[in-house]
Amino acid sequence: MNRWIAATAAVLLAAAPARAYDVARVGGGFFGGQVTTVQGQPTTTARFTASGPLMTMDPNGEFVAGQMYAEYVLLSAPRAKYPLMLWHGGGLSGSVWGDKPNGQPGWEDFFLRQGHSVYVSDAFERGRSGFPRADMVQGTPIFRPMQQAWELFRIGPAGSWSIDPAKRVRYPDSKFPADGAEGMARMAVPRWTTTDAQTQAAYDAYVQAVGPSVILVHSQGAAFAQQAAVTAPDRVRAVVVVEGSGAPDPSKVDAARVKDVPHLFVWGDHMDAAPWPSFRAALDRWAEAIRAAGGTADVIDLPKRGMAGNSHMMMLDDNSDEVAAVIQDWLTAKGLMR
Amino acid sequence: MNRWIAATAAVLLAAAPARAYDVARVGGGFFGGQVTTVQGQPTTTARFTASGPLMTMDPNGEFVAGQMYAEYVLLSAPRAKYPLMLWHGGGLSGSVWGDKPNGQPGWEDFFLRQGHSVYVSDAFERGRSGFPRADMVQGTPIFRPMQQAWELFRIGPAGSWSIDPAKRVRYPDSKFPADGAEGMARMAVPRWTTTDAQTQAAYDAYVQAVGPSVILVHSQGAAFAQQAAVTAPDRVRAVVVVEGSGAPDPSKVDAARVKDVPHLFVWGDHMDAAPWPSFRAALDRWAEAIRAAGGTADVIDLPKRGMAGNSHMMMLDDNSDEVAAVIQDWLTAKGLMR
Repeated sequence: MNRWIAATAAVLLAAAPARAYDVARVGGGFFGGQVTTVQGQPTTTARFTASGPLMTMDPNGEFVAGQMYAEYVLLSAPRAKYPLMLWHGGGLSGSVWGDKPNGQPGWEDFFLRQGHSVYVSDAFERGRSGFPRADMVQGTPIFRPMQQAWELFRIGPAGSWSIDPAKRVRYPDSKFPADGAEGMARMAVPRWTTTDAQTQAAYDAYVQAVGPSVILVHSQGAAFAQQAAVTAPDRVRAVVVVEGSGAPDPSKVDAARVKDVPHLFVWGDHMDAAPWPSFRAALDRWAEAIRAAGGTADVIDLPKRGMAGNSHMMMLDDNSDEVAAVIQDWLTAKGLMR
Repeated sequence: MNRWIAATAAVLLAAAPARAYDVARVGGGFFGGQVTTVQGQPTTTARFTASGPLMTMDPNGEFVAGQMYAEYVLLSAPRAKYPLMLWHGGGLSGSVWGDKPNGQPGWEDFFLRQGHSVYVSDAFERGRSGFPRADMVQGTPIFRPMQQAWELFRIGPAGSWSIDPAKRVRYPDSKFPADGAEGMARMAVPRWTTTDAQTQAAYDAYVQAVGPSVILVHSQGAAFAQQAAVTAPDRVRAVVVVEGSGAPDPSKVDAARVKDVPHLFVWGDHMDAAPWPSFRAALDRWAEAIRAAGGTADVIDLPKRGMAGNSHMMMLDDNSDEVAAVIQDWLTAKGLMR
């Protein structure tokens, strides 16, 4: 069954309101990466455009592999002390911080309005970072079906998915938009599950290049961000973990290294759905280790604050601004604004 | 031979100067795309993070395929009458409009400073648009070696490439930075050569959603942009083609459809290097057909303006701002600024 999704007119409809912020510069660049030589592969031919000539294609030679990309919007007079880096989760790219499926502004715009210069990155092998040749990476990319996202991201319970949007059953209090599944699926990108070492190396290079900054990280990105803080506690001034799926193991990594790096862990609703208790256990252990070392590891369960029904994708939920405001309040309380 | 490239400190060094422009909104969204069902594939297992549980992975289900992504920066008081869409070339993504390899601002920032609201897109199967499952696309992705880029993009003549940066020989008047090849290679993304129809469909959906706009397009994107103008001459208010590699065939496509859509064709130096005469012939034919239909198709050869040595990647060349200023002057002359 195929059906066409109408092109999003949201961008068009989002007519520019009042002046929101003064910008000094917009751009983007690359971090990390390695020149690698490929040898001994046979030549092929390819036509690069329909009307173009047949060209000999020698797949051998030098390539850069392992790099990652980030775009940035630098404010002329930021109210935040440090730039805010937004790190996406698995099967996604930096696009998750842009417009929500309903066309409303996402968290990149929210935090710019709050006075943060913002960096939005794509992890290694995702988005504008490009993906590696098959002979430069183990395994094959994985594509997440809409049903898996629906359940894993706690929009509805197991068995509640339907191809027919009208028959999908969300949690009764769900804040994920009723018609948002197709829009979320358009944000999905393939991902490998074998690239943790390369991904971490690129993130570490990124942190070194940007300098003192605050990381706000989602889901799969959490393990990389928390490790990056351990590696460079002089660079990472705070870590906000939104529904992390992994963390350093305190039996192997010394949490005292981040005792001066405040951490916040934010969790949505319906956290008893598998596999979230298993994911959360690793984060809770790391948070406890930070506290035991004399550091700050605050935990916010949104339902305990009266905010019910938030999904794993809370930056796309209808109340995403309210969730972001909870994070902004914490950043302010930690002295990270001027 | 491997060697590590130092992380770009350029972003860090680019300390915010004076206030450059007032922004109303920053965001990004998706255009086009189709829900597609996959059936009959065997289940596998995967561990999504190093510390996570082994999860059953059912590759069957619904996916969205065919979508494309664009980010945007909307000015609060643009001086341009229409937003400027930047469309990248083959083997690249929207990152090509960001920082140059030397860390200096790219064309996205340049045109924002000139008063254009700017959209930066990734074509279908590139960048944040994601790439399709192997069973949803013909062929395999192609990776461009640094040597091919060096020659095809006319940085140096055939045979002038060396693995050793000190031994690479650029054209004597080259404006491409002497140490820019690694930085350019980091921007490279894999590309298919079999996806023209899907790419065009996504671009057409994008043009419809954004509304009246001006397209500035590079290289492989040119064929798609010129066809998009033919399909939607009410939406596309001008097309600036920077070194296009393809164009509609006037024996099959009626150029009169774009007689009210001014076109500009910009070419760099050393255009006699293969395969450029072949590429250029298609563009010259289409430009002539537009003029024969009573339309505007201006051609600017930069060397004839006294600007020598520009490569195919003129948005990365040392004089990129001067090239952009030539384009800005044309847009002004065509009445596209307020």
